[in-house]
Amino acid sequence: MSSNTEITPAWHLFLFTLVGACSGLIYTVFKGDGEPLLASLGFSGIAFAATYCMICWLGDAFKRVGFKGRDRSKRDQREIPETMGAVCAVIYLFTMILFLPFPFYEYLVKSTSGGGNRDLTVEETYTGRTLHRFPHNKLGEYLSALLSLQSMAILGVADDLFDIRWRHKLFLPAIAAIPMLVVYYVDFGVTNVVVPFRLQPYLGQLLNLSWGYYIYMALVAIFCPNAINIYAGINGLEVGQSIVVASAIIANDMLYISVPGHPATSAHLLSLYFLVPFLGVSLALWLHNKYPSKVFVGDTYCYFAGMTFAVVGILGHFSKTLLLCFLPQLFNAAYSLPQLLHIVPCPRHRMPKFNPRTGLLHASTATFKSPPRPVIATILRLLSKLRLVQLHEQDGEIVECSNLTAMNLFLVHFGPMREDRVTEWLLGIQVLSCAVGLFVRHQLALWVFPHDNLRFSMGSFMPAAEAV
Amino acid sequence: MSSNTEITPAWHLFLFTLVGACSGLIYTVFKGDGEPLLASLGFSGIAFAATYCMICWLGDAFKRVGFKGRDRSKRDQREIPETMGAVCAVIYLFTMILFLPFPFYEYLVKSTSGGGNRDLTVEETYTGRTLHRFPHNKLGEYLSALLSLQSMAILGVADDLFDIRWRHKLFLPAIAAIPMLVVYYVDFGVTNVVVPFRLQPYLGQLLNLSWGYYIYMALVAIFCPNAINIYAGINGLEVGQSIVVASAIIANDMLYISVPGHPATSAHLLSLYFLVPFLGVSLALWLHNKYPSKVFVGDTYCYFAGMTFAVVGILGHFSKTLLLCFLPQLFNAAYSLPQLLHIVPCPRHRMPKFNPRTGLLHASTATFKSPPRPVIATILRLLSKLRLVQLHEQDGEIVECSNLTAMNLFLVHFGPMREDRVTEWLLGIQVLSCAVGLFVRHQLALWVFPHDNLRFSMGSFMPAAEAV
Repeated sequence: MSSNTEITPAWHLFLFTLVGACSGLIYTVFKGDGEPLLASLGFSGIAFAATYCMICWLGDAFKRVGFKGRDRSKRDQREIPETMGAVCAVIYLFTMILFLPFPFYEYLVKSTSGGGNRDLTVEETYTGRTLHRFPHNKLGEYLSALLSLQSMAILGVADDLFDIRWRHKLFLPAIAAIPMLVVYYVDFGVTNVVVPFRLQPYLGQLLNLSWGYYIYMALVAIFCPNAINIYAGINGLEVGQSIVVASAIIANDMLYISVPGHPATSAHLLSLYFLVPFLGVSLALWLHNKYPSKVFVGDTYCYFAGMTFAVVGILGHFSKTLLLCFLPQLFNAAYSLPQLLHIVPCPRHRMPKFNPRTGLLHASTATFKSPPRPVIATILRLLSKLRLVQLHEQDGEIVECSNLTAMNLFLVHFGPMREDRVTEWLLGIQVLSCAVGLFVRHQLALWVFPHDNLRFSMGSFMPAAEAV
Repeated sequence: MSSNTEITPAWHLFLFTLVGACSGLIYTVFKGDGEPLLASLGFSGIAFAATYCMICWLGDAFKRVGFKGRDRSKRDQREIPETMGAVCAVIYLFTMILFLPFPFYEYLVKSTSGGGNRDLTVEETYTGRTLHRFPHNKLGEYLSALLSLQSMAILGVADDLFDIRWRHKLFLPAIAAIPMLVVYYVDFGVTNVVVPFRLQPYLGQLLNLSWGYYIYMALVAIFCPNAINIYAGINGLEVGQSIVVASAIIANDMLYISVPGHPATSAHLLSLYFLVPFLGVSLALWLHNKYPSKVFVGDTYCYFAGMTFAVVGILGHFSKTLLLCFLPQLFNAAYSLPQLLHIVPCPRHRMPKFNPRTGLLHASTATFKSPPRPVIATILRLLSKLRLVQLHEQDGEIVECSNLTAMNLFLVHFGPMREDRVTEWLLGIQVLSCAVGLFVRHQLALWVFPHDNLRFSMGSFMPAAEAV
């Protein structure tokens, strides 16, 4: 049984050209005193090509060892490879390791070439290489982020393999975040946050959250991967939303690095170094995962993507901005809570139901084994009036309600729809909400904070101001 | 079908006591200004207990997803869980992450407690924590080592899952070593080696190997994991040899750190930090894997163990000493070469053959499909005279020869033997050869090098002298 994902001659040509061009770009940067960001672009192109090909080549092997699933929203319900996020993750991590010398390149070159000693206090070591000016703390940050991402990939694959229970898997990202948090503790330990404008008379300008800050970081790390993981279930949505969010954060990063000499430049450069290759591997996966899916991404991808966002948000000190790009996911998570907390019954799968006759997706439902308590029933009826949930009643008792996911809510509102149309709409909403989120960040933040980071004057710069 | 590995009440009691004592030890170190090495011991004890229990608990889950194998050297050939090295690796990595603050603890405490400012040039940062004196390059080393070990674990599991071909899997450790080598390149770049005494008139005291040094490191990283992986096949041998080698290196490290103020102290401390927890998880695995095995370790363990040794050897700059602890593996690898290079036919499995009637292991054989070339035949006959190989001839032509592994050679020499006796003998040889290796290192090294590292006088200390 052969996989139906084959590389066409046109794609071969395109990928070869891409890899050639990217290799040339990397070589140019390596030889000249070039921008690491250009090298990152080059690596991302190669990572795209590698991911595209590896997914084609490894499909059958994945199916053989049991990484496979049926697409329940198709008429033929054929079996396709799953857990392809693992391929993405491995190629991504490999890319990030090979890219590593580039952001630190200028420090190596300036100290070994011997030309133009700008810094007279530089300590020459016996090897002729300067260790003093080397930004080792940045290296620690970078490596700890990779360790966390790799741990997340391992735990994601373990989840796909062993089907870990919901209440356990919720905490897998917290475990994966430990390397990053431990290194943060050892290496930086900045736990001050800027207090909103109107609270400053009571709390002062800076507040030291101490251990609370680590808990906050752990919560961000738990939220992002799980938020993506529960906003999933139709072809292309997991990867699509990740691509939109990554693009939004990249746009935000570009805003910062385009301001010459902005104090947060290095944090946003780091974010770009992590997100551009992520975009590369995700785009390749998306081409295989978009409607009609030829491969599934697995929990591995959702965890991995979410963790990438958490990592850049935490290390770049813009986790609040990050959460503004997660508005649909935040809504979906909040809307799902009654089911996740088992206030309303929660079936194993909550994805929309496919009607093979019409080829459309319908809102799926959860069945009440016993009638809900009066207070729950009243709330559900109220929500039903607001068209926020669909109820099915029998003899005056609620027997079924639509599953509480943003996807089902969308179908309740707009009626049954083709799968690809649902994905398009939801991704459109994601684009819109990211735009609104970033607008809020830069235009309305002045209402609560003394100044927007982007227009931070150099004189009043205080590093801790970026701490959240 | 339940796994036959259950924790007895006596073991429960022992493990609870152990974990309690170790937690107390860690707490004491954390509170007082204690030795990180004591904390490492505490973590190792907990890692031992965790590994022991997790292997019991996860056996059935591993079998369910296909990580299982038959023990061909037993009469009942029952199926037991495989790839248990993955459990070791995950617990080990987790331990190493949680242990991370301890070796860097003194730098945190001294700079935050404010008491006893010994170093007046210390730069205070805005957070009240000193970043200047923090050994970030050590942190980079540590994290890159963990990244390499984690990569090795991932590739090991991938190998166990997908059964990667021999000629490909040979290079998996080289891929896993990349994080460590890249960070070495970025961070240290010391590529000088001390030239042996008698060659110094021609080459000078130090020789810069440049790229050659990276190739050398990659070769060490390729050798160690593969050497353990091909010296395997009977119950307990993989873990047993790793325990012996780890103990030998630990003993060597202790020699160094017991010399007050020895310049290599920090390198050997790092080695201890990596090897003591490794010993913890390996001992727990060994209890389940020793004759008669209740679980198999999988290629994952062999790769992971070998990579741990490669990492400490490379980062501790004592890779030559390391190789002296690998004498049986070196012999086995050299002896295997004719089969690995397909000069002599190489069957898929070369482990000794079990005779169910006698319950003894016999040397297994490889069959010649066509008679060997005259020069090969002559060499084989010569080796046969020296009792280094067992041949079976028919009509004057060689039709079979014993497989070229140290294990088969042992059985050729000493005749069929019970499996547990073979393991004991081979491990005994390992102990002996490690002792000889370390003796050679410290007593005979003076013949080729101007001085033994251990008795290095402080005055003549040159960091590059440890580079190999």
